[in-house]
Amino acid sequence: MVVELVCVGTELLLGEIVNTNAAYLAEQCADLGMCMYYQSVVGDNKERLSGVIRQAMERSDVIILCGGLGPTQDDLTKETVAEVLGIPLIEDAHTKQCIREYMEQYVVSHPGHKITENNWKQAMVPEGAIVLDNKNGTAPGLIIESGEKTCILLPGPPHELIPLFSQQVAPYLKKKQPEVIYSRIIKVCGIGESMVEDTIKELIENQGNPTIATYAKIGEVHLRVTAKAATEAEAKKLVKPIVRELKLRFGVRIFTTEEEKTLESCVIDLLKDKGLKLTTVESCTGGALTARLVNVPGASAVIRQGLITYSNKAKRKLAMVKKSTLKYEGAVSEKTAKEMAKGGIVDAESDVSVSITGLAGPDGGTQEKPVGLVYIGCCCKGVTTVQEYHFKGDRNKIRQQAVSAGLSLLRECILEQYYS
Amino acid sequence: MVVELVCVGTELLLGEIVNTNAAYLAEQCADLGMCMYYQSVVGDNKERLSGVIRQAMERSDVIILCGGLGPTQDDLTKETVAEVLGIPLIEDAHTKQCIREYMEQYVVSHPGHKITENNWKQAMVPEGAIVLDNKNGTAPGLIIESGEKTCILLPGPPHELIPLFSQQVAPYLKKKQPEVIYSRIIKVCGIGESMVEDTIKELIENQGNPTIATYAKIGEVHLRVTAKAATEAEAKKLVKPIVRELKLRFGVRIFTTEEEKTLESCVIDLLKDKGLKLTTVESCTGGALTARLVNVPGASAVIRQGLITYSNKAKRKLAMVKKSTLKYEGAVSEKTAKEMAKGGIVDAESDVSVSITGLAGPDGGTQEKPVGLVYIGCCCKGVTTVQEYHFKGDRNKIRQQAVSAGLSLLRECILEQYYS
Repeated sequence: MVVELVCVGTELLLGEIVNTNAAYLAEQCADLGMCMYYQSVVGDNKERLSGVIRQAMERSDVIILCGGLGPTQDDLTKETVAEVLGIPLIEDAHTKQCIREYMEQYVVSHPGHKITENNWKQAMVPEGAIVLDNKNGTAPGLIIESGEKTCILLPGPPHELIPLFSQQVAPYLKKKQPEVIYSRIIKVCGIGESMVEDTIKELIENQGNPTIATYAKIGEVHLRVTAKAATEAEAKKLVKPIVRELKLRFGVRIFTTEEEKTLESCVIDLLKDKGLKLTTVESCTGGALTARLVNVPGASAVIRQGLITYSNKAKRKLAMVKKSTLKYEGAVSEKTAKEMAKGGIVDAESDVSVSITGLAGPDGGTQEKPVGLVYIGCCCKGVTTVQEYHFKGDRNKIRQQAVSAGLSLLRECILEQYYS
Repeated sequence: MVVELVCVGTELLLGEIVNTNAAYLAEQCADLGMCMYYQSVVGDNKERLSGVIRQAMERSDVIILCGGLGPTQDDLTKETVAEVLGIPLIEDAHTKQCIREYMEQYVVSHPGHKITENNWKQAMVPEGAIVLDNKNGTAPGLIIESGEKTCILLPGPPHELIPLFSQQVAPYLKKKQPEVIYSRIIKVCGIGESMVEDTIKELIENQGNPTIATYAKIGEVHLRVTAKAATEAEAKKLVKPIVRELKLRFGVRIFTTEEEKTLESCVIDLLKDKGLKLTTVESCTGGALTARLVNVPGASAVIRQGLITYSNKAKRKLAMVKKSTLKYEGAVSEKTAKEMAKGGIVDAESDVSVSITGLAGPDGGTQEKPVGLVYIGCCCKGVTTVQEYHFKGDRNKIRQQAVSAGLSLLRECILEQYYS
């Protein structure tokens, strides 16, 4: 079943808001096994909107429209859909009652507001439509079936759209779906996108059902294997041998095969499973690596403290880097990274530490030590590993790459010292 | 001039990523005075992509395509545009050299990597195209002029797309515009979007030329005043009185009127101008505030060190928070935030400090101290200010709001103690 998304709103065309509804609805539709080939954004303009609706009805089975259901005159999604389908609008007594109740409550808690005439516009629905009660606003959701096609209208605010979709639209769509889609994700780190592509070149060339897609992230590549079949069991059976093959080819580079796991959450898991405590000692990344780790719920079980040793003095005082090292090797050097990593362990009585020192630029680079030069150290079971990196890009990108490389190296060292 | 946006990528249709590029490009185009009536998203599929391109060429003057310029086989935006326009692809020697240099550096810093054959695919460009060097990746941007129409191709990753657009595409588009568009930005912090709108309600209601647009960011609101006129002098003249009025109404809440200045860069400037040193003491934000400050080039003149005191022990040891405070008031309390801020000053011999302690969730909340409760402290010239905040949203959103509020409070305290 082919679904198409039409988001209505001038604020999207002006870039005033980010279209998070599109990402939410696309993901939900993919999970329901529906194919989405197109998404459109169009303004609150009757002519252009009806053109987009007509085109969507030609090429897709289900059209989800979001936005433009408000009480004002420039909200005209419902009116336009009804016109395109040739269905009259009639007043829905139940919806009118819901709006009255919602507004009465709203007015009580928002002094100065009152129910205005245009609120009743929202009680008009296309004849025969399935009306979906909206507990978080006054615009009901609407499902309009017209021949083989279905139009689903949802209000734009995410806190109204998401519950309406998940509680009422998703069960409706599930019943309509003849095929099942099943997909698995494989996330690898420490290897670039084109190397990933090269490793599985002939698999990609020969793909059919299932498909293999690669997504490059900073310091990571995600591979998605997706199959369609009549039943979930069949789809799983198609996906399984491909996933097995990918696991063989990427081995330890795979940090997770779970959708919601991140590189940082995997590092936290590895530490937690062995009861290890981590200290971070960051210079050029200024706390960004720790911030990523701390974003994992429950990080407190693993992280006690982090040291942002930005100045030489801080490197000496907080991480016990030797004065002579800073003087003769420099703050951005293998030896400094090593001493930072070791100092982190001692100071915080931790088991594992990671240190980052580098030149993020834009200034401060020399021929010998150019901008982008970063040393990352990792201390695990008394073994200190330091790697040298040369990152490209602006200050922000260099720092982001350094953070990802730091997490990658940390994972590698923990695996080597505690898991092999 | 009518511009249309076509975003290419199966990951958008599957909802794997949020289309932030669309919001960025839409905002930029609006600033350039261009009209955008349509945005589309289409997958990496030649037939559907060429259909979308053909339709866009019929109804718009400039088509901006983003995504699908990578080295892999499913990246086919460039190939499809060239086919639709009937322009052959030829190898661009300069681009090939850029890719070689980029990759050679990349390979040096990423042991185990090598340049693969598919990287050279990115050196093929449509004959006659304007090639835009990409310093942050291997896919160049492309401007292809074909009769009255212009296609602009940009790589999908935002850290590549944004600098390419702002530095090379925007100046190009500006020249094509018949009218002059002049706009000024006013960035305010420490005040919510609806308060901002309330403050300028009648200005917005009566707007014509110039227009006033508000953009809500986390912890900030940006106001853009834009005028169209025959000459830049005329446009400036239209904008000036509105900007003056906004300055009167928002006063000290305005942290900058410069496009590229950020809240963190303004804080760094305030500190630098007075020769002040800053220490940060972060708990729930885990280094994220420091990371934002360190992202400002030259932050090292101001920041010596940061302490991430995630555990109670670290709060005591690194920031000298009293054992009794933690025991009787708790780690998330006004008193702890105050002692963290004071401890930061003493330990690092700094002039100014900022501290953050809070409950980012998802667990750990109680009726008395719910998730979202955050205390932010600031110590300036011996005066310690602590503010209590109640943020909404998930763990990540709470932490982002805490960081912005921390920067805002820091700015306020510095202004009060050193600039008034």
